[in-house]
Amino acid sequence: MGMTENIYRQRIEALRGLMKENGIHAYLIVSNDFHASEYVGDYFKCRAYMSGFTGSAGTLAVTLEEAALWTDGRYFLQAEDQLAGTGILLQKMGEPGVPTFVEWTASRLEAGQTLGYDGRTIGGGLADTLHKALDPKYIRFMETEDLVGKIWTDRPAFPAAPIWTLEEKYTGRSRKDKLEGLRRHMAGCRADRTLIAGLDDIAWLFNIRGGDIDFNPVPMAYTLIDFDKAVLYVSEEAVSSDVRQELAEDGVEIRPYFTVYEDLRELPEYSSLLLDRSSCNVALLAAVPAGVGIISQGNWTVREKAVKNSVEAANIRRAHIRDGVAVTKLLYWLDQILDTVDYKEGRITELDVAARLLELRGQQDGFLDQSFAPIIAAGSHGAIVHYDPDEESNIPLVHDSFLLMDTGAQYLQGTTDITRTAVLGTVTEEMKEHYTAVLRGNLDLAGAVFCKGCSGVKLDTLARLPLWELGLDFNHGTGHGVGYLLNVHEGPQRIAMAGSNVPFVPGMVTSDEPGLYLAGRYGIRLENLMLCVPAFTTEQGEFYRFETLTMVPFDRRAILTDRLSEKEKQQLNAYHAAVYENISPYLTLEECVWLRDMTAPV
Amino acid sequence: MGMTENIYRQRIEALRGLMKENGIHAYLIVSNDFHASEYVGDYFKCRAYMSGFTGSAGTLAVTLEEAALWTDGRYFLQAEDQLAGTGILLQKMGEPGVPTFVEWTASRLEAGQTLGYDGRTIGGGLADTLHKALDPKYIRFMETEDLVGKIWTDRPAFPAAPIWTLEEKYTGRSRKDKLEGLRRHMAGCRADRTLIAGLDDIAWLFNIRGGDIDFNPVPMAYTLIDFDKAVLYVSEEAVSSDVRQELAEDGVEIRPYFTVYEDLRELPEYSSLLLDRSSCNVALLAAVPAGVGIISQGNWTVREKAVKNSVEAANIRRAHIRDGVAVTKLLYWLDQILDTVDYKEGRITELDVAARLLELRGQQDGFLDQSFAPIIAAGSHGAIVHYDPDEESNIPLVHDSFLLMDTGAQYLQGTTDITRTAVLGTVTEEMKEHYTAVLRGNLDLAGAVFCKGCSGVKLDTLARLPLWELGLDFNHGTGHGVGYLLNVHEGPQRIAMAGSNVPFVPGMVTSDEPGLYLAGRYGIRLENLMLCVPAFTTEQGEFYRFETLTMVPFDRRAILTDRLSEKEKQQLNAYHAAVYENISPYLTLEECVWLRDMTAPV
Repeated sequence: MGMTENIYRQRIEALRGLMKENGIHAYLIVSNDFHASEYVGDYFKCRAYMSGFTGSAGTLAVTLEEAALWTDGRYFLQAEDQLAGTGILLQKMGEPGVPTFVEWTASRLEAGQTLGYDGRTIGGGLADTLHKALDPKYIRFMETEDLVGKIWTDRPAFPAAPIWTLEEKYTGRSRKDKLEGLRRHMAGCRADRTLIAGLDDIAWLFNIRGGDIDFNPVPMAYTLIDFDKAVLYVSEEAVSSDVRQELAEDGVEIRPYFTVYEDLRELPEYSSLLLDRSSCNVALLAAVPAGVGIISQGNWTVREKAVKNSVEAANIRRAHIRDGVAVTKLLYWLDQILDTVDYKEGRITELDVAARLLELRGQQDGFLDQSFAPIIAAGSHGAIVHYDPDEESNIPLVHDSFLLMDTGAQYLQGTTDITRTAVLGTVTEEMKEHYTAVLRGNLDLAGAVFCKGCSGVKLDTLARLPLWELGLDFNHGTGHGVGYLLNVHEGPQRIAMAGSNVPFVPGMVTSDEPGLYLAGRYGIRLENLMLCVPAFTTEQGEFYRFETLTMVPFDRRAILTDRLSEKEKQQLNAYHAAVYENISPYLTLEECVWLRDMTAPV
Repeated sequence: MGMTENIYRQRIEALRGLMKENGIHAYLIVSNDFHASEYVGDYFKCRAYMSGFTGSAGTLAVTLEEAALWTDGRYFLQAEDQLAGTGILLQKMGEPGVPTFVEWTASRLEAGQTLGYDGRTIGGGLADTLHKALDPKYIRFMETEDLVGKIWTDRPAFPAAPIWTLEEKYTGRSRKDKLEGLRRHMAGCRADRTLIAGLDDIAWLFNIRGGDIDFNPVPMAYTLIDFDKAVLYVSEEAVSSDVRQELAEDGVEIRPYFTVYEDLRELPEYSSLLLDRSSCNVALLAAVPAGVGIISQGNWTVREKAVKNSVEAANIRRAHIRDGVAVTKLLYWLDQILDTVDYKEGRITELDVAARLLELRGQQDGFLDQSFAPIIAAGSHGAIVHYDPDEESNIPLVHDSFLLMDTGAQYLQGTTDITRTAVLGTVTEEMKEHYTAVLRGNLDLAGAVFCKGCSGVKLDTLARLPLWELGLDFNHGTGHGVGYLLNVHEGPQRIAMAGSNVPFVPGMVTSDEPGLYLAGRYGIRLENLMLCVPAFTTEQGEFYRFETLTMVPFDRRAILTDRLSEKEKQQLNAYHAAVYENISPYLTLEECVWLRDMTAPV
């Protein structure tokens, strides 16, 4: 410990030396890359490098005398452990009396002093919050200095995985057509050019994919587009000559990733620039000359990529059948291992299940990767919403309990995300009652017919009502959008308790994942992906419904049939019939027989 | 017509003369009184006086050369008729290419010119909109001149109906206690005093009622409250010496209604004033000296009066039984008249039904007034959402159709609001299907159990889902809050398609009124009032449900029983059993027998 302690204390002292050189009195180090990506590559793990705390969420604030780190309840124990001896104070977010890092920073600075951070890691929204809190105190901002980069001598290389292009048989829409659509939108906004910083927006727009972010197949990139050309800023070594030429044919010029800042500084006065402030880092915003008119609104690409076209939809259906085959085979395998000595002696672990599923997915055509870190949660681990097993937390499967499995994959044909909760051994009547309530929520949401204009906050109710009736609830969103061979969490639509007011549009793919979590006991979550499709048009308007994409049986051993309404029974039977029809052709005879029983009508 | 035409042209010309005298280039005349009340007394009908247009919603803008009036789709025909020959251009709100009155006014004024209006009729929100549109054009505002008042020589007297006090056996909370609660809130906000302009807020706070507004039993009033005294600004002639003394005992001083403006101007510098900008008119806001700090937030009284206490809740239940007796007797009477010659020969009209219901309500203990203009809509009139019959529109009842009746009353024990749709003669299977879908929506919303924090936008879905499944919908809110012997439309909670994000709290009374409207054919609406009550508290949180207050049977002749789920059937039977139990003791034997059949289990 003495060694480690010294390292982080030394790094903080080195930072303070640079702060003094630069006239900075407080310095913020956040967890983001330059694009607010959900997963952050090693190059960007400045906060972990400076503090030793390796959790996914945390903010470090350093003054000339103090250092403090903010993280949330998931990480209190881990952070206490990792920060021991570093001299960094742990600030437990959400606990009574704990200031936010903005409040704390404001209280540490005096009028005329300077706050510093690497502006590339701070979004426009956070910068606004900081300015609102600190401007009235006459605090100055220095947003250009990456001081950690100057200390971090053995920093990993900037990511530059090869960029590849996705054929139109997968995208359903050419790069040329997308660029024309964007330019028509720019014209409508009276913008001379547009800046996009969202990595999945850029990958979608140019029909390219990369590998710079775990699970999200996107390259690090910016783009600046006017009516003559589109400049794609990426690591040049990531682009082969073939890709470069294919892009050039559509008027796309490749320039080095970091050049975007210089090019923004050169923008002509009195020109107008369309961007989304909330998805641009402040270094980008600061590089725009004062004479350029900024038009800030949500990116056109966000809405366009959310609405899958018919080619994408057809591919996604195929991806879900392939993924359904893999997950169904896993469920069959889980049933078979119950009688093995390895299982009985506790030698089959959560990580073994994850490995087996990865193997089964790897056998599917078009499989590329997992779409997020698999959550395989045995017994009481199922009640930890953000649990994903690693070597340290990994436990053997728990008999006579639920096994919660939330996993997903990237295929050339699209992105999947599925949660099934399997019965291992025998479960109690109460556990079945809870499983049935979650299942009812899943079915009731999936079975809704709704009017044009209806948004996720309104449909969320249907997934929760069967739980509310039992005095139960779950403390997470009910559904998120899903990309096409892109991010598994994609906007703009959501299904949640509050604040999800973007109306559904046919073509959107959204998850349906109610759950139930009893701390120390077990967790249940049942997740399917759904495609919004037209239901019918009448004199009173347009109506939509969902088509369920995921093709994996629910565990009928946990279903109390008498708790289901007639409608729910019909819906479950129809779903299971579709699962059997779509999945059985790819199964062994033994698996087929098993699936036939699992999907028999209730 | 020549005569009328001359009058409004002459009035507009007289206004232009005054505008020139005052250096005003455009003048706005809106439909509001000084408190943005839902119903407006004759004294305040300036827009009707100036234009001849008598609809409830409309805005008149007059420049030195032009005059235009904005109204919505309900009034296009009426406005065209009434504006003919006045020289006033009709602006049909919502039609393509029609500017808003703000846009129109902005386009008519040049830099340095002046816009005038009576600031007492314009709310803080509209004033903000006007300033945002006109300030960049360097338009000046003159907000103090009531120019119409100078022209209107035979203007009706300012309303001053007697003010009376409501006993604690009705209010459940003393004036003293309410004032203390408000002052504790003021202290928490670090406010030296508070200004309240909402008429129902003031009536609730002081446990007073009045008669200055149709259907809303409130006096015209303002109040300014500090920690030493509460000043109630009302027409002095409205206050008897008994009332004056009762109020004085609780530290309430009466001052003349219009004095509030002078008193605001005298507020001490550096003091702080708590108010709700959105419910104060701009003349009030303009009267506050620049040196006074304004703390603007929603009125404390809005939330407090929405949550009915146990005494109010017990009274409200009584009011609903009395009102249920009257409405049930009306439904019985409607059934009896079908065989009469008067009915068969078309001599029983919508207004006859309204009169009969008023008579039946008048026989109930504690009845004071109707709570809004009764909507009695025969046949295709039912499809006009805002229809209420007058001498001109009144038609005889339509046989083999629905009769839609949306009515309510003010009792000492509370305010009621109920809609029933009765079958007259025989209705088609399609009509029954539609009635059943609306009924299912009503029952599904009323039967919900929901978590603390759940708001109206989420429960709205339950009322619409059975209609959506048939490709149907309704274009109005599903529920509104209801006052206690106060306004029938009361905030802050609502149940609506969007934007109703105030969580339900036990004690809130809200309507549940899905409907269906087929233009030219018929309308259906079924409305009960519901009290939010605790359901249970579990480890996972608090859960609430609704207690249905309204006690009147649905029309079982229009219900297709096989369309109801088991849960809906049980709920309908339980409701009808409660109706029979509560209402039958007050009925004649014949009515009892009829009600027994109407409420028999399905």
